[in-house]
Amino acid sequence: MHGLVFPSKLLENTVEEFAKLPGVGKKTALRLVLHLLKQPVSDVDRFTNALNKLRHEVKHCIKCNNISDTDVCHICSNPRRDDAVLCVVESIKDVMSIENTNQYNGFYYVLGGLISPMDGIGPADLNIDGLVNKIAQGNVKEVIMALSATMEGDTTSFYIFKKLKNTEVEFSAIARGVAFGDELEYTDEITLGRAIVNRTRFESTLAL
Amino acid sequence: MHGLVFPSKLLENTVEEFAKLPGVGKKTALRLVLHLLKQPVSDVDRFTNALNKLRHEVKHCIKCNNISDTDVCHICSNPRRDDAVLCVVESIKDVMSIENTNQYNGFYYVLGGLISPMDGIGPADLNIDGLVNKIAQGNVKEVIMALSATMEGDTTSFYIFKKLKNTEVEFSAIARGVAFGDELEYTDEITLGRAIVNRTRFESTLAL
Repeated sequence: MHGLVFPSKLLENTVEEFAKLPGVGKKTALRLVLHLLKQPVSDVDRFTNALNKLRHEVKHCIKCNNISDTDVCHICSNPRRDDAVLCVVESIKDVMSIENTNQYNGFYYVLGGLISPMDGIGPADLNIDGLVNKIAQGNVKEVIMALSATMEGDTTSFYIFKKLKNTEVEFSAIARGVAFGDELEYTDEITLGRAIVNRTRFESTLAL
Repeated sequence: MHGLVFPSKLLENTVEEFAKLPGVGKKTALRLVLHLLKQPVSDVDRFTNALNKLRHEVKHCIKCNNISDTDVCHICSNPRRDDAVLCVVESIKDVMSIENTNQYNGFYYVLGGLISPMDGIGPADLNIDGLVNKIAQGNVKEVIMALSATMEGDTTSFYIFKKLKNTEVEFSAIARGVAFGDELEYTDEITLGRAIVNRTRFESTLAL
């Protein structure tokens, strides 16, 4: 499949568009497009309409930046959630992952990325000002940093911590350590080292 | 990612449409859709328009059933190709693969599938009548069966052979044997057995 010779320009254009998707090569793109060509026109219309409607009509919650069909998302508009706790995450996907655990009942704040000089993403490219304004309103008592355990995540957490250190808010970060089900033998040394340093009392571990 | 809680119905609909694609699970679908959400609206419009245009406007060549932007495809309308040889393939993808080898200069005939009772596909579901009519016109001297080396491919080849055995056309099938670069040790016994039975003269092998 080196130099693909396409029998149709329309097919070639569509395959090229699919091949721009992350992790989709030309061969996979061709397979997906030929599959769609075999489907009824109405099915393909439903596919393109869904994507079209999403891209044109989707909103970002004015309170947390999460994707939403309404101005305020269903989490931020839920009166039974605890507005004293704010969990800072990188993306919408992280909100979905944490919601999926059923272990958190506070609000979220979606940054939309992490500080990454390598990728040209600075603090100004993230929604950090909105976060600072939110904290300044005074309802939030605790900010939980739930960013990736990477250089970029740590840098971003540190930047936000510095920005907010003059406020009265309390800071925490999600626990890092050996994942449930992981064997010590295969745990990398940095994770294992930190897990020993940051060991927790035995009772609290059991309580999980 | 068991029971995904979507923050938006629009997002959920689009992820569901993507998850219908072959080999795309919910998690991959979400990743693709969130990627598209980050792209400029114009890029996503280009994506949906390409697919939309393809599905609504694509034609099938009236001579060979290949996908085409015109009534007769660029292969069938090429006067420098040999109209005495007709290569019967399952799908458009096979035409592209064979064209890619630069080893074939005749015409094609795309069946659009293989006889497969397990999947409820009978001879009537394929474009076999068109093939029979084409042969009846008398230009074609040789029909090359280039179908998959599977039960379904063999059944289809045999069915077509029976349908055309009263014509003067010559039948051939693409060679089966040990693939170039394959080690004998790892070649399955059926392939190896047939490769011994159907051995070719040493000179002709070298000529390849």
